[in-house]
Amino acid sequence: MPKQIDVNERKILIAEALWRIILKKGIEGASVRNVAEEAGLSLGAMRYYFQTQHEMMEFADKLASERIIKRVDEIFTADKDPEEKILQVLVEMLPFDTKITKETKVRIAFRMRSVYGGKTGSAGGDGVYFAVKNAMSNLSLLNRLKRELDISLETERLFALLNGLAFDCLLRPTEVTKDKAREILTYHMKSICKEPLE
Amino acid sequence: MPKQIDVNERKILIAEALWRIILKKGIEGASVRNVAEEAGLSLGAMRYYFQTQHEMMEFADKLASERIIKRVDEIFTADKDPEEKILQVLVEMLPFDTKITKETKVRIAFRMRSVYGGKTGSAGGDGVYFAVKNAMSNLSLLNRLKRELDISLETERLFALLNGLAFDCLLRPTEVTKDKAREILTYHMKSICKEPLE
Repeated sequence: MPKQIDVNERKILIAEALWRIILKKGIEGASVRNVAEEAGLSLGAMRYYFQTQHEMMEFADKLASERIIKRVDEIFTADKDPEEKILQVLVEMLPFDTKITKETKVRIAFRMRSVYGGKTGSAGGDGVYFAVKNAMSNLSLLNRLKRELDISLETERLFALLNGLAFDCLLRPTEVTKDKAREILTYHMKSICKEPLE
Repeated sequence: MPKQIDVNERKILIAEALWRIILKKGIEGASVRNVAEEAGLSLGAMRYYFQTQHEMMEFADKLASERIIKRVDEIFTADKDPEEKILQVLVEMLPFDTKITKETKVRIAFRMRSVYGGKTGSAGGDGVYFAVKNAMSNLSLLNRLKRELDISLETERLFALLNGLAFDCLLRPTEVTKDKAREILTYHMKSICKEPLE
């Protein structure tokens, strides 16, 4: 059993191996055996870090959300207009080439798997939900939203819009390109914000 | 080989058997063998109607879209306010108990399968896309939309919103209930229509 290596660091390496498998073969290829091979570990060593496939999946899903949340924080601390930063955050949540492309694609695979397997839950720990909630409350705090808006409904509306767009970007890539998705999100933001964007 | 029975009618019975399997076991349970059993046919008889699994899937997917489009037509011909009818159409596109619950759920399964299997396409033949496009052009024709709106972007926005909501209804059923989904859609319609809804 490896003892010198930091356990959490090794768990992260395994989760990243799992992500690579999901991105190559889909989530159904993510057996403990396949992940062990991808991570260069024996099955015995794998069990030292994760007792079950479920445990490994949960960790990898949570890690993707944490990375998404971290990326949101990075963008938010940049020296730009709030609306501009929020638009950037929204576009980065879509499965295009960004710093968190792997994470957003893996998140969609996990979400689809849940629906597919009849597993239900809440949006609580979801990185994209966090981003949307954060964006809306920031806009509200900065008094940038139009007066008559219902923040709670706007949050759900934007979250659904973003998830639907993410899906369409994968399903209809020639119709919903990155530019088109950005255009739709900009349009949406303009419709809820007081001042004109761009 | 059965000769007396109308071929298209029998194909529809097979497609409906396929739907039942998808709703019970997920799309991965939809082997030709399983569908034959569910439809009460021999494998040989199945091949008389569909040469391949792919052909059977395409037919069943198309049939779901046709039924959705037919349902939209039914609602549109009712004697109600256009906004009310359009709202009803939108809510019926979600996977709740309606006349086309099976069809909308099967459609989501097919869409997920495409993304999952890396199969891309266009929204062209999609029943829900048709419904959204139809709703927007009707609102435009009747001059019910606010002046500054971009119909093409509004169509994509509403389509993405609806798909995202459908997904959330399945994934977070206690958070996104039928009432909540209707509330979000009503809110969206109010934001784009001239006159107040309800």
